[in-house]
Amino acid sequence: MITTADPLLIGGREFSSRLITGTGKYPSIDALQQSITASACEIVTVAVRRVQSNAQGHGGLMEAIDWSKIWMLPNTAGCATAAEAIRVAHLGRELAALAGQSDNNFVKLEVIPPGPHLLPDPIGTLEAAETLVKEGFAVLPYIHADPVLAQRLEQVGCVTVMPLASPIGSGQGLANLANIRLIIEAAQVPVVVDAGIGIPSDAALAMEMGADAVLINSAIALSANPARMARAMALATTAGREALLAGAMPRRREASASSPTTGLVGS
Amino acid sequence: MITTADPLLIGGREFSSRLITGTGKYPSIDALQQSITASACEIVTVAVRRVQSNAQGHGGLMEAIDWSKIWMLPNTAGCATAAEAIRVAHLGRELAALAGQSDNNFVKLEVIPPGPHLLPDPIGTLEAAETLVKEGFAVLPYIHADPVLAQRLEQVGCVTVMPLASPIGSGQGLANLANIRLIIEAAQVPVVVDAGIGIPSDAALAMEMGADAVLINSAIALSANPARMARAMALATTAGREALLAGAMPRRREASASSPTTGLVGS
Amino acid sequence: MITTADPLLIGGREFSSRLITGTGKYPSIDALQQSITASACEIVTVAVRRVQSNAQGHGGLMEAIDWSKIWMLPNTAGCATAAEAIRVAHLGRELAALAGQSDNNFVKLEVIPPGPHLLPDPIGTLEAAETLVKEGFAVLPYIHADPVLAQRLEQVGCVTVMPLASPIGSGQGLANLANIRLIIEAAQVPVVVDAGIGIPSDAALAMEMGADAVLINSAIALSANPARMARAMALATTAGREALLAGAMPRRREASASSPTTGLVGS
Amino acid sequence: MITTADPLLIGGREFSSRLITGTGKYPSIDALQQSITASACEIVTVAVRRVQSNAQGHGGLMEAIDWSKIWMLPNTAGCATAAEAIRVAHLGRELAALAGQSDNNFVKLEVIPPGPHLLPDPIGTLEAAETLVKEGFAVLPYIHADPVLAQRLEQVGCVTVMPLASPIGSGQGLANLANIRLIIEAAQVPVVVDAGIGIPSDAALAMEMGADAVLINSAIALSANPARMARAMALATTAGREALLAGAMPRRREASASSPTTGLVGS
Repeated sequence: MITTADPLLIGGREFSSRLITGTGKYPSIDALQQSITASACEIVTVAVRRVQSNAQGHGGLMEAIDWSKIWMLPNTAGCATAAEAIRVAHLGRELAALAGQSDNNFVKLEVIPPGPHLLPDPIGTLEAAETLVKEGFAVLPYIHADPVLAQRLEQVGCVTVMPLASPIGSGQGLANLANIRLIIEAAQVPVVVDAGIGIPSDAALAMEMGADAVLINSAIALSANPARMARAMALATTAGREALLAGAMPRRREASASSPTTGLVGS
Repeated sequence: MITTADPLLIGGREFSSRLITGTGKYPSIDALQQSITASACEIVTVAVRRVQSNAQGHGGLMEAIDWSKIWMLPNTAGCATAAEAIRVAHLGRELAALAGQSDNNFVKLEVIPPGPHLLPDPIGTLEAAETLVKEGFAVLPYIHADPVLAQRLEQVGCVTVMPLASPIGSGQGLANLANIRLIIEAAQVPVVVDAGIGIPSDAALAMEMGADAVLINSAIALSANPARMARAMALATTAGREALLAGAMPRRREASASSPTTGLVGS
Repeated sequence: MITTADPLLIGGREFSSRLITGTGKYPSIDALQQSITASACEIVTVAVRRVQSNAQGHGGLMEAIDWSKIWMLPNTAGCATAAEAIRVAHLGRELAALAGQSDNNFVKLEVIPPGPHLLPDPIGTLEAAETLVKEGFAVLPYIHADPVLAQRLEQVGCVTVMPLASPIGSGQGLANLANIRLIIEAAQVPVVVDAGIGIPSDAALAMEMGADAVLINSAIALSANPARMARAMALATTAGREALLAGAMPRRREASASSPTTGLVGS
Repeated sequence: MITTADPLLIGGREFSSRLITGTGKYPSIDALQQSITASACEIVTVAVRRVQSNAQGHGGLMEAIDWSKIWMLPNTAGCATAAEAIRVAHLGRELAALAGQSDNNFVKLEVIPPGPHLLPDPIGTLEAAETLVKEGFAVLPYIHADPVLAQRLEQVGCVTVMPLASPIGSGQGLANLANIRLIIEAAQVPVVVDAGIGIPSDAALAMEMGADAVLINSAIALSANPARMARAMALATTAGREALLAGAMPRRREASASSPTTGLVGS
C-alpha cells in the first residue's frame, strides 16, 4: 500500500522506492539488514574504498545485502580529487559486477577535499563527471546546492544531481532549502536530496518541494532504533511525494473558517 | 503495518490513530468519505451549529459517516462567547447521542471572537472550560499556543490541550513551534496540534517534537485530491511519531563521514 | 542625526527614542550608567520589588540614574498574581514620586506564575490591567504574543501592549514573529516588543515589522561590553524604524539585474 | 559617532565604512547622490559595460560621483564567460583611471550565465579569478555561498570573497545563512555578503555572524525613499559590527529573570 504507481527513473532504470539508504555507521550488520528491509529501499550506496579495505564496520557488507534485490550505488567517498574519484569509480564497477550486477554502471560521485564539513569540490566534481560520463558511467554527483553547477553537470550528461541538504552526518536538515528549490525548478534530470536529513519531516519537506528522491544514511544508522527510524523515513518520503501529487492547498495570509458562519443554530 | 502498539489516550478512551480530521470544506460528501477512509482516522470533529442548521456542505453529514467506527468530536465553532460555547456543547452531546454515542461526552471547545484570523479568546475559553468540566464534559480546548494558558486549562481538568500551529485554514504550518514545544514539555495531558497544518512535513514535525496527535481539516479538504492528501497526512503523522519513539540522531555542528577515512584502498 | 522627527506617544507622553532599557543583570552600576547613555534611551524600567528590597545589584539604583532626564517605568516583576501586581504598581507610583516624577502613572504590568520560562498569565494580567486602568494608571502589560489578548487589553484601556519575542533573558529572538505581526496589524495603541531580543538584528526586524518600540535588558547587560552593545541596539532600532518609514523594496521570487542587459559594450 | 576605530582592509586599502553600495536602479541621479551621502559608504560598485554603453540610467554616472572620495569598484556584470569578464575587468581599470584612480586595480568579478536567478558560474569565476590575479588585479569574486569554492578562490589569491545572500535584486535576505557562516569561519580574507539583502535586519545579521562588510544596491535604490533607506542600512551595518565586537549574550534554552527573586518586598 505504501508503493505507488509513480516510478523513479534514473539512468534508464526504474525504481518504485524514492528513499535511498547507505551502509555506514550502523551499530551492527543485523541493524543494517533490518533497516534496509524496514526502509523498503531499492538502492543502497556503498563506499567502495571502505568495502575493499574491509574498514571497520564494513566487513561482511557485501554478503549482508541481497544484491539480487537491491541495486548497488557505489560511491567514491574518501576521494579528494577528480583523479582519485575516477579510479575509485572503476573499482566500484568491479564491485557491482562481483555482486552480480555486471550491467551496473552507476556511480555516486564524491570529490571531497579535506575540511571539517566534508563539502564537495565543484571544480573537481565537474571534471570527474565529464570523464566518467564519456567512459559510460551513469553519474550521480554529490554537490553543494549550487543551481549553476547543477545545470552544468546535467549538461555534461549526469543522470541525476544530488544536492546536499546540510553537511554530511550533521542532521541539520534542509539548510539549503532555497537553492534546492531553484535546482528542482530548472532540472531535467531527477534531483536527489542527499546528506543532512535528520528527521522524517526533513525528508517529507524535500519531497513536497519536488525532489525526486532522498538519500539518508546517518539519520537512520545513528538512531537508537535504526530499523524503526528507517520505516519512519520511508513513510515520510512517501507522504511527501504523495502530497506533491495530491496538490497542496494554497497558503493563506488570513484564517478561513471551516464553513460559512451564517445561518447558525443554537443561539 | 502503519498501525503501532502505541495507543493515544484521551479522556479515558483509547485510539490507535493519531490523526484527527474534520468535515468542513470538502468538495463533496464522496470526497469526505474517501478521505476519512484514506486517513484511517478514528476521531472526526463536527461543527455542531453547522450540522444542526444544515449549513451549506453539511447536509447529509450525519449519515455520511459510519459512527459505529468513528468517534465524534463535536466542536463549538461559530461561538464567540463562553455562554454560547457552553450551550452548543450541550447540543453536541445530543448530536453524539443521536449518532449512537450516548457515552460520548467529548467537546472540542472553541470560543472565537470576530476577527480575520479566527483566533481563540483565552479568557472565554478558560471560563467555558471550567463550567463544562464541572458538568461532566471531556473538554478539548482549542487555544493559542500560550504555555501558561495551557497549564491553567489542564489544572481545571481539561483532558487535552489543542494549541494552534497557525491560523485556521491558513496552511501556514508551525508558526508557533517554539511555544508548542514549551506546552509539550510541561503538559501532563495529551497535546493535539490543531489548525494551520498545511503539508505532511508540518504534521511530521509536530509529532517529532512530541505532540500526541494532530488535527487536520483544510489541508486535506482543499487539496486537489483530498483522499490522496489524507493518506499522505496519515503517513506523515505516523512517520513523526515513529521517529520520536525510535530516537533521532543528535544534530551536529560539523559533518561526520560515514566511516573511518583511514586505511582506504584504491589510491 | 540618529534622532528622528517621529515621536513615540505612550499614555499622552512623547518620546524620541524607541528603545526602552532595563536595570537588571549589569556587572556594575558604572556599566549600567554608561549603557543608558550609549543607548540614548528615554525610558528605563525598574523592578519595584527589587529596588525596594535593595536586592543584589539593585543597591544605589535610584541614585545612579538621572531621573530628570529618564522617564521611570516601574514594573511588577516578581508578582505571580493580579493582587500582588496591583499592590506593587502602587509602590511603583510612590517610587516614581520619590524620583521626582509625581505625575508618573506608568506601570509595566507583569503577572508571572512560577515556571522555568517566566511566561505571563493572560487571565491575571487582564484582571490586574482592568483594575489598574480604573485606578488611573497608564498600564503597559507584558504579554504572551496572543492577538486576542492584546485586543482585550487594548479594550480595557491599556496604553500599549508588550508582547514577548521569546522567553525573558533567553536571547532567542523573534520566536513569536507571526503573532507579533498580527498584533501590530490590529493594534490602535503602540506595540512594544519585549523580552527575548538577543542581537541588534532582532531589534531591527521587530521595528521593520511595525513595532513601535522595543524593550531590551539582558542582551545589553549580559554583553561582554554592555555600553557598546547598548549603542548597537540603539542603532539597530533606529535602522528598523527608518526602514519602515522609507519603505522596503518588495521581495521577489526571481533575481533582477541592476540594469538592462541590452546594449552592452566590451564584447 | 557612527564611525568606528575598526578599519576594513581589502587588497591593502583601508576603509572605515563596511557598507558598499551600487549605482543601478535608482529613480534619478539625485537619488543616487543623496543615497551615497546618506550611506556614508566609501566604495561604490559600477557596472563597467553599462557605464561605457551609457545604458539607461547610467548616463552621467561618472560625473555624478565624487571619485576623489569614493573608491570605485568596477564590476563585470553582464558577462557570461570568463573570457568576457577578463576583458571587461581591463575596461574597468581604464574607467577607474579616467576617474582619477590610476592605482585602482580592484575588480568585482561576476561571471553569470543566462538564467532567471542571475547566479554565478563557479567554474568560470575561478578560471577568470586565476587569470586576473596573475595580471595584477585585486579580485573580489561574486559567488554562490559554496565554502569549498570560497577556499579555492582565496587560494588563488582573491583579496575577498563575496557570497550571495540570495538572488540579486530579490530582497529575500539571508537564504544562504548556514553556508555563509561556514565561509566566514574558514576565510582568511574579508567576506563581503553581496546580493539579496532586503531590509536592515538582514545587513545587521550578516555582520553579527562575522561578515566583514555588506554590499547593498537594490534594497536602497528601490525603496520609496532611497536616501532614508541608505541611512537605515548604514546604521544596521554598524549595529551588527558593533554587536559582534561587543560580544553577544549566549542564547539560552530557558528564561532568566532580571534579578534574584528572593528577598522581595511588597507582599
